[in-house]
Amino acid sequence: MNRFIWPVRIYYEDTDSGGVVYYANYLKFLERARTEWLRSLGFELDALGRDTQVMFVVRKLTVDYHRPARFNDLLHVRTTIAEARHASLHFMQTVVRIQESEQQLLCTGHSKVACVATDSFKPRPVPRAILAEIFGDN
Amino acid sequence: MNRFIWPVRIYYEDTDSGGVVYYANYLKFLERARTEWLRSLGFELDALGRDTQVMFVVRKLTVDYHRPARFNDLLHVRTTIAEARHASLHFMQTVVRIQESEQQLLCTGHSKVACVATDSFKPRPVPRAILAEIFGDN
Amino acid sequence: MNRFIWPVRIYYEDTDSGGVVYYANYLKFLERARTEWLRSLGFELDALGRDTQVMFVVRKLTVDYHRPARFNDLLHVRTTIAEARHASLHFMQTVVRIQESEQQLLCTGHSKVACVATDSFKPRPVPRAILAEIFGDN
Amino acid sequence: MNRFIWPVRIYYEDTDSGGVVYYANYLKFLERARTEWLRSLGFELDALGRDTQVMFVVRKLTVDYHRPARFNDLLHVRTTIAEARHASLHFMQTVVRIQESEQQLLCTGHSKVACVATDSFKPRPVPRAILAEIFGDN
Repeated sequence: MNRFIWPVRIYYEDTDSGGVVYYANYLKFLERARTEWLRSLGFELDALGRDTQVMFVVRKLTVDYHRPARFNDLLHVRTTIAEARHASLHFMQTVVRIQESEQQLLCTGHSKVACVATDSFKPRPVPRAILAEIFGDN
Repeated sequence: MNRFIWPVRIYYEDTDSGGVVYYANYLKFLERARTEWLRSLGFELDALGRDTQVMFVVRKLTVDYHRPARFNDLLHVRTTIAEARHASLHFMQTVVRIQESEQQLLCTGHSKVACVATDSFKPRPVPRAILAEIFGDN
Repeated sequence: MNRFIWPVRIYYEDTDSGGVVYYANYLKFLERARTEWLRSLGFELDALGRDTQVMFVVRKLTVDYHRPARFNDLLHVRTTIAEARHASLHFMQTVVRIQESEQQLLCTGHSKVACVATDSFKPRPVPRAILAEIFGDN
Repeated sequence: MNRFIWPVRIYYEDTDSGGVVYYANYLKFLERARTEWLRSLGFELDALGRDTQVMFVVRKLTVDYHRPARFNDLLHVRTTIAEARHASLHFMQTVVRIQESEQQLLCTGHSKVACVATDSFKPRPVPRAILAEIFGDN
């Protein structure tokens, strides 16, 4: 299935006084990468909301923190679709640090992202055009 | 005029790898205090939006950073109305650290907060009930 | 075992343009509650770092998002120790919305929090004084 | 003097339930741009801290908010050095929205950024290599 890489630079805003990236901020990086993955397939989330009245919300999330990222690090977020269902997408994502020729695994995230109506937050089918792009039958 | 004190505890989320509170996060504390000041006068911002279709947005902001706050500090945000106009409120706020019997000035913020329509963001008069509470002629 | 409740008010800083609390921000609430739980037992994290050179870092996290919180909501974070090991504490936390007499479950979080050295991030035993407080044999 | 442009994409993390970018988050964009401006001159802030024991902290900040940015917007932050002193740099920065062929001014920020010792936060001279790059006499 799809595999998508999005770079993230660590700024002061991302770190905490432990000297490392604050644990909640990895969720921002994971979402940036999911948004950019959709954009790379040709879908803009704001247009999707206006045109089809759906948005994506995270229903369940598991994160394993292996090693800390630090200020000024350059990270790569790798995004793979683990499963595409009628009304949700399951993502498997890893965050790695790029340093010279080496890559270190920092964090792994699994998320179940539901497609919902923008007004009621009730489940809606994932737009067929998105599924078509994921499964490549276009 | 009014004077209002709101306590803020510093958590990891507020700090950065410089070992101190990240400079943008003081703006969160200033806004929490403005929101709680309004609540203390009897106004809830969500009800205000629903009932009168107005919200408050910051138009101009000046912040002086005197001393850094650190993890686990207990701060007080002091909020004073410097000026109340037809369509905006001007706040003068200070952030001080409470430590034993001493108080240290960390940060001073001046903000011009405009009252706008929730849909168009165009200027609207500050609700008279709020002005009445500020000027105490109720 | 222990059960601890910490209130959280939702401000603009916590919400996103979907109209609800941004999913990463619940992790801030969970951490505030863990920090305040420790404080309620008599332990300040900054003193702990200075005196025993240890800090706590999240190693693994699972979050279920049931219902969204909104601007101005008053939430309660309930914190329970699910397991206390030699070098880690396992927390079970729920976030509920308090509205009149009703309580709605918004979010459930399980976290494995490791005790590590402040300099090397290598595992260290959870300070015995903390374990004694948790197990109540003091 | 120098003029530097850094692009910023708006994600959900940056917005609030008013439907626009939360006012404190522009300060993150301004800092990212200052950091990338320094990197473009050949200076990495983490190396600078290790090698010369100095860091940069914002002492004074003025922000004018003209128009709101929204989810999915692509912004440009323009950074100019307004003044370079012995122990501080004064920045003039604007945030503009790029939309088709049009550019809209969203926000203007003036900041006085002091060079300080990483341990004591006491004023230190701006490293001469940085001043040389700014003034172009290298």
